[in-house]
Amino acid sequence: MNIGIYIYDEAEVLDFSGPFEVFSTAVRIADTPNIFSVFLVNETGKAVTARGGYRVNPRYGFSDHPPIDILVIVGGVHTGEIKKQRVLYWIKEQSEKAQLVASVCTGAFLLAEAGVLSNQKVTTHWEDIPDLRKCYPNLEVLENQRWVDEGNIITSGGISAGIDMSLHLVSKIYGVELAQKTAKQMEFEWTQNT
Amino acid sequence: MNIGIYIYDEAEVLDFSGPFEVFSTAVRIADTPNIFSVFLVNETGKAVTARGGYRVNPRYGFSDHPPIDILVIVGGVHTGEIKKQRVLYWIKEQSEKAQLVASVCTGAFLLAEAGVLSNQKVTTHWEDIPDLRKCYPNLEVLENQRWVDEGNIITSGGISAGIDMSLHLVSKIYGVELAQKTAKQMEFEWTQNT
Repeated sequence: MNIGIYIYDEAEVLDFSGPFEVFSTAVRIADTPNIFSVFLVNETGKAVTARGGYRVNPRYGFSDHPPIDILVIVGGVHTGEIKKQRVLYWIKEQSEKAQLVASVCTGAFLLAEAGVLSNQKVTTHWEDIPDLRKCYPNLEVLENQRWVDEGNIITSGGISAGIDMSLHLVSKIYGVELAQKTAKQMEFEWTQNT
Repeated sequence: MNIGIYIYDEAEVLDFSGPFEVFSTAVRIADTPNIFSVFLVNETGKAVTARGGYRVNPRYGFSDHPPIDILVIVGGVHTGEIKKQRVLYWIKEQSEKAQLVASVCTGAFLLAEAGVLSNQKVTTHWEDIPDLRKCYPNLEVLENQRWVDEGNIITSGGISAGIDMSLHLVSKIYGVELAQKTAKQMEFEWTQNT
């Protein structure tokens, strides 16, 4: 199983590094070796400058990534990405092939603009809730949720909520025990929805 | 004020990206522009492969970084680093010039081996507490602490505890209000020591 985390210039650092940490830690501590592979992917395959001048290299670009079973679309300054037809097309195409699609923070805007989200229950960063409602009135935008699970589409709140959601994905796919062990290894207090 | 986060091959992803997120978010939301600069630094200035195959580029190497006021030494698989005399010398030298020195997770072993820690109260990842006690018997190693503040040396627990400690550093230097605003922006529940 391959987990692809989509990154881009001005993506929020913790939006992608938090989920990466969760999935790679889960792989490390799972009883079964290599239960999945996690990688960063972007449009070009070349280095990205995330927010604050953080330079990170994706493992793959659009042209050479392996099949993606779980697609994670992160947030940040998404206003440039949302205008790129090639990116939106890729997100839509990969979402149709993937088993699960997830967004962190304002990644929900990219999923909505790509047509992956239509009338689901969703969430995003608390600061962007009004804007998401205004831009995509068919969505049911929920507040005060760490994540919203609509089966094969899961959206999370802002920044660190992506860590909570990623633990939920580990739990959903491999069981709550591995998710709890992963949180313990990360010394992370897993905030679940109440 | 410059915050330099030291990275290396097999460093733990969240150990450096968590603090980077805290400091860069604090810069973004502070009332005063550019209250500090935060950057990753490594030995060579070339890309690092952190745990799980995460490739990240430091902004600087040992030969070209600006003065470091706050030095953050991260954990991960530190067993290679701890044998590098050049790295230990650099850590010692930078620690003497810096105003504050902090470690995340097993970064405490690097600070201890470099002679920056001698007989302080410290902490590390829960799994490494016995080993830190055994290797450096003069240290007073505390359990169940998110971080231990010994004035100009602050050590944190494992992985995500580095986020809590970084918020503490923001609070210590710029006040609790900015730290709380940063945590809110990150949707992070700041766990403080009780």
